[in-house]
Amino acid sequence: MNPDSYSSRLLEAAVNEFSKLPGIGRKTALRLVLHLLRQDPQEVYSLGNSLIRLRDEIKHCKNCHSISDEEICNICTSPQRNSSLICVVESIRDVMAIENTRQFNGLYHVLGGIISPMEGVGPGDLSVESLEEKVAGGKVREVVLALSTTMEGDTTNFYLYRRLSKYPVDITAIARGIAIGDELEYADEVTLGRSIANRTIFNASFNNKE
Amino acid sequence: MNPDSYSSRLLEAAVNEFSKLPGIGRKTALRLVLHLLRQDPQEVYSLGNSLIRLRDEIKHCKNCHSISDEEICNICTSPQRNSSLICVVESIRDVMAIENTRQFNGLYHVLGGIISPMEGVGPGDLSVESLEEKVAGGKVREVVLALSTTMEGDTTNFYLYRRLSKYPVDITAIARGIAIGDELEYADEVTLGRSIANRTIFNASFNNKE
Repeated sequence: MNPDSYSSRLLEAAVNEFSKLPGIGRKTALRLVLHLLRQDPQEVYSLGNSLIRLRDEIKHCKNCHSISDEEICNICTSPQRNSSLICVVESIRDVMAIENTRQFNGLYHVLGGIISPMEGVGPGDLSVESLEEKVAGGKVREVVLALSTTMEGDTTNFYLYRRLSKYPVDITAIARGIAIGDELEYADEVTLGRSIANRTIFNASFNNKE
Repeated sequence: MNPDSYSSRLLEAAVNEFSKLPGIGRKTALRLVLHLLRQDPQEVYSLGNSLIRLRDEIKHCKNCHSISDEEICNICTSPQRNSSLICVVESIRDVMAIENTRQFNGLYHVLGGIISPMEGVGPGDLSVESLEEKVAGGKVREVVLALSTTMEGDTTNFYLYRRLSKYPVDITAIARGIAIGDELEYADEVTLGRSIANRTIFNASFNNKE
């Protein structure tokens, strides 16, 4: 849209700001801004201030590097969680995804990315050092690697394994196989091959959440 | 997504605020918020403040009811525009769409909606009174009706025609190069531009194919 056609600099500024967000083009940004103009002023202040407060006040948990309101997040401080079990993930979105499954009661360690030579991300850019310190502390019994099943994820898994295998800790990885609800016919060969090689003892309570 | 899985109230608040916007669900909202957390704080303040300023400082032009930074918008104050020609549109989005065609050099009059008995919008909810005053002032020579080619748009055209036809003013309507049922906002620029250039004299038998 032609910048001349904005009758208001304020409107134009707001559209410009919105359209910097990923997946939001200028037309969508305009739609959002005009929507906000029809709302109660309080609603708009509330959106604007929540963003400013978020950026100002949010912290990263000193223990797991996840996003937190406090110095240590409420997963790390919870007495119900098993602190000898650490799940290594790429980002906070993965923490949320795993939390939603309600299948994991250990702590997390957010790497902040995965090793990707293509994007110039090396081990030094990730929170590997603090993970190793935790493991070296001797209280951790198992580290679960829960990274993406991509080449970068594999590289990172392998790198972490080399760094951590000298300590007396079990290093496991999330199971790879055919997703629930998928048909074998359409599964790729690598996944299908791996799922046969890594077959598990069948038991009737397989799908039941213990 | 399960609310328990937010490790931060601030994060949750920002996601809640974003997901109130039209077309933005909780997953998209989370993606946007996590994107903002990776940006420079200045970027985030800039988005937050632009929204707050927008809501605080924006005005509606007293002449055409469009959105403006001043009491009178810069289209209405421009000496290059033909003030005896008024284009009646539904919303500011239509003003922008027509401005983009560069086919119109008159002024606008934003109705603020169209007559829609289904949604309880009657003539009293629109800025018809001030349009009639302008026309009654005697300086307007032509009123171009540029409303959506929907049933509501036709009804509004017809209503405006009845209100304005007693004054010595030409009442025209944008040419129906636009497919029936389409909304102005989504029309391509060529079609929209052509339809303004080829506007025709409005008459009450408009819809009858006689």
